[in-house]
This record gives sequence, C-alpha cells and structure tokens, in this order.
Amino acid sequence: MLVGFLASADPAAKVYAEWTGKTCVENGFAFSLRVVDRELLEDAILQANNDDSVSGIIVYYPIFNNRQDQYLQQIVSIDKDVEGLSHRYIFNMYQNIRFLDPHNTKKSILPCTPLAVIKILEYLRIYNTILPYGNRLHGRTITVINRSEVVGRPLAALLANDGATVYSVDIADVQEFTRGAGLRKRRHEVVEKPGWTLENCLPLSDVVISGVPGDKYKVPLELMREGAACINFSSERNFSPEVKEKASIYVPAIGKVTIAVLLRNLLRLAQNKIDAAAHGVDDKSSAEPVIPSTA
Amino acid sequence: MLVGFLASADPAAKVYAEWTGKTCVENGFAFSLRVVDRELLEDAILQANNDDSVSGIIVYYPIFNNRQDQYLQQIVSIDKDVEGLSHRYIFNMYQNIRFLDPHNTKKSILPCTPLAVIKILEYLRIYNTILPYGNRLHGRTITVINRSEVVGRPLAALLANDGATVYSVDIADVQEFTRGAGLRKRRHEVVEKPGWTLENCLPLSDVVISGVPGDKYKVPLELMREGAACINFSSERNFSPEVKEKASIYVPAIGKVTIAVLLRNLLRLAQNKIDAAAHGVDDKSSAEPVIPSTA
Repeated sequence: MLVGFLASADPAAKVYAEWTGKTCVENGFAFSLRVVDRELLEDAILQANNDDSVSGIIVYYPIFNNRQDQYLQQIVSIDKDVEGLSHRYIFNMYQNIRFLDPHNTKKSILPCTPLAVIKILEYLRIYNTILPYGNRLHGRTITVINRSEVVGRPLAALLANDGATVYSVDIADVQEFTRGAGLRKRRHEVVEKPGWTLENCLPLSDVVISGVPGDKYKVPLELMREGAACINFSSERNFSPEVKEKASIYVPAIGKVTIAVLLRNLLRLAQNKIDAAAHGVDDKSSAEPVIPSTA
Repeated sequence: MLVGFLASADPAAKVYAEWTGKTCVENGFAFSLRVVDRELLEDAILQANNDDSVSGIIVYYPIFNNRQDQYLQQIVSIDKDVEGLSHRYIFNMYQNIRFLDPHNTKKSILPCTPLAVIKILEYLRIYNTILPYGNRLHGRTITVINRSEVVGRPLAALLANDGATVYSVDIADVQEFTRGAGLRKRRHEVVEKPGWTLENCLPLSDVVISGVPGDKYKVPLELMREGAACINFSSERNFSPEVKEKASIYVPAIGKVTIAVLLRNLLRLAQNKIDAAAHGVDDKSSAEPVIPSTA
C-alpha cells in the first residue's frame, strides 16, 4: 500500500494527492490518503515507517514552506521513500552510485521529477540505446533552465552522469556539467561559465528543458536550434505556442509521467526488499534507529 | 585534528573561521583551515571523512546560500560532525533521544548554537540542579524569538524537552512547546497559539532569548517581567541598552561559547570513538556507503 500524507494547505498539493489516488486506482495499486495536522505529521510518518502494511510513503509539500519541510523529507524511511528525497538517495544520484549495497542487489531510488524527465528523454530516443548503458547521452548538448535542489540541479547532474554536456542556467549564472572529454570521469564535474547566458547555451543545445516558476517567463525561441527537443517542467508554460514550428519535439507538461515514476519507484522498493531477502542481505538499510514508544 | 572548510565569500564566515583557529590554538587543539573552491568542496569533505588524521570537520556557511548548502551539511560523516548538523543528530534532538546506539555508549551530538544557549542557561543556574536530570527546566517559562531550523526551532525543542514551557515566536505566529502537564510526554509537543503575540508571551516569561537578524529589531522591554534573564543570539543587538535596568541577567552575545561548544563536541566525538572501541560496538554509525575512488 502507498500512503500519502496531506498536511498542506496548498491547493496544488491537494490536486497532486488526488491525481496520485486516481493513477493508483487505475493501475491497481492500493492508496491511502491521510489528512493530518502538520504538528502531528512527524509522528504519523514514523508510525507508517514501522507499519508493515505500508510499502511506500509520499508527503505532499509545501507544508511549513521553510527548512522544516526538508527536515520532514528525511523522516521517511529510506525503504519506503518513493519520492527519492532521502539524503542517501540524493547523494548516490550526485555521486553516480547506482546501488545501495556493495552486493549490487538493492537499486538506489532516483527523485521522481528529474527521473520523469529522464524517462521522457529515453522514450524520445534522445538516449541512444546503441551506446553503452551509462553513456547514452554522449554527444548530446542539453540546456536546463532552473537550478533548484528539487529538480534543476539533480537533473543536470543525472544528464551529465549519463554523458551529456549540460548547461545549467539560472538567474545568476551558467554552469557546465560534464564528465570531462571522452567521459573521463566516473561522475560529473561542474565548472562556472563566467559571462555566459542563454545566448551562448541555446544555439548549442539539442535539447532545451525549462522549469521556471511564474507565468511571465518564456524561453527565447529565436536563440534555439531548428529541430531542438523541448520539454517544459514548470507548472506554467515556459514555451510560447510558436515552439511547435521550431522544435522537433515539444513536451508541454510532465505531471502524469512523474506519477507513473512514483509507482515505478514503489515497485522498485518492493523488488529491493524481495531481492535483499533472496540474497540474505541485511534488510536494514535505514540509518534511523528504532524509536521508543512515547510515554 | 579539527579541519575547517572555507568555501564561502561571506566575510562573517571568514571571521568565524579565524575565531575557530584562535580558540583552537589557545586551548591546544590542532586546527587546519582549508580554503577550497565551492565546486570541489563535496569531494574535499568526502576525502576528510576517510582521513584518519581528521577527528572533526566544520564547514563555514553560507556557500551557495540556497538548499545546496543543506545538501552539503549531510555530506560530513556523522563521526566527524562537530557542528551537529547531520539529520541523525537533529532527529535525535527533536525526538529527545540522547544516544546513538542501543547500548547507550555513544552520545548523540547536539547542534552548536542551540547547545551554546543551553550551556549558558546551565551556567546561569536557570537549569535547576536540584531537579532530576532531563527535567531541570520544569516550571520555567521561556520565550524564544526566532524559529529558524538552525537555531530557533531546535532551541525551543531542547528547552521543552528539558521541561520548560516555551513560546516560540516568529513573524507569522506563536507556538507553544511543552512536554504536557506534569511532563507527561517523553518529548515535546507543539500547539499553535492563534492570535498570540509577544504581548501574551513576554509578561509570562522568566527568560527571553532573541535572535532576529537585521539591526532594526528590538525586543519590547516594557512587556517583559522585571528581573527576566535575557540572552541575545543575533549578530545584531536585539535588546536596547535599557535592558540592563530591567533584566536580572543580560547576555549580549554567544559567539565565544558557541566555539567552546564546538570543541566540546569534538571531544565528545573522540570519546564516542574510544567508548565504542572499549565496548566492542561497531564503529560504523554512519549511513554513508564507502565511496569508490573516482576514475
């Protein structure tokens, strides 16, 4: 069973919760939405961590809309974290470490939204399956507009870890994520590109991925290469309608794929549990201690 | 050896690094300040994690001044985290769990700045040593103005876990942290106080602790009880000079105590290592996997 915790007053969180429920029902997954007071959420998550009938946990943010939300993200057991937000998972993602254990039986979970973009790029054959697994973006140049810790930066790292040259663009500056010439490195490195702007990045890019919040921003289409693939992960439309005349492929929204990826992660966690049991690997991958019951 | 990583352009970070060095030298601790490019900091920390000559690590923030800084805080090995910023430590603090292991041999580290305030309150005998350990603030009412994840909220939780009634005040609202009537609970609980402001909290408070950034804010002294103890942890002066006429005790700054606490945590980590070895406890308390060397 997937459990969703709704302790947010944000209408978008409520809509996301409803969508999750709908997608679960359509695909035969059990889903339980639990509406809880935000001051009781930490204990409710800990209880779900220790409840064997719960296979996965999703928490709808924002809740406190400050760093307390990041604290809560770390409360979810790593064995039930379908969103892939545990530090251990994020660390493995940046470090390009694909398994949780030295026996390579338990796959590390990737964060949902960046993974949704990856899955879309695989589907669109921008990942080239002729190339070896792990290097399938070798030769691609990709601009990612947004460098948030939630989507933009992890996405740039994932794409570079798979071999792409990535220009990560935010208001302040441009950074280049690569694995070095000839994919020398095991994982990406980052260099600043002083003075660079979209004027430098877009003409070089096969793929343009944008996730700028707010309804004002539009990607300057005139700078883009003819036939670029364009993906929007903002809740607003970052590409104006004329994008269809210039892009080879245009993906206006990724929400449905993100929920599918959430369910994929749920299956992955279940599979990890089965594989670990079959291989006799200690199932306690979580760093969290057992919590004594409250007095 | 304590290692400090300076990858921040913030002058205050540089000053804090210099103070740490000075305090270490005065007290016979080895200290090595390493100035690194922020893009190379993650690898530098990982290397120090694996270096047996390094006993403790401190990183001077802000660096990216966004959520990437919180990611970096989780990179430091739990066995070397003198600042007490690892999620495991923060989690134990909120949950009032005082040891890392079920054998109670390894003490959990507390975050430096909130712990500095606790140590000041102990020194000032606001902690009553007649009362049992763990309940020594029973009967005290304390207002904490600031509810950041770094200082204000952990401090309110620590004080309530030790038995105080705490009013946690920020711009938006007031929350009451307690362990319930008669210290019923093992750890604190939080309730919102709708409509409350400092006008309600200050007249009830034996102790007033303030950490509002910016030079504009002043605690309204006219609302305070005669003889209250006042502690300022802002880098600015949150109490106007007249506080000396009304307060029984006034502590204008806590920086030096914070660095002393940092060294105390360093000794604690060293002691944990010795105790764990003596008790034959597995020393691997960290959840981080061993990192393969880069290609």
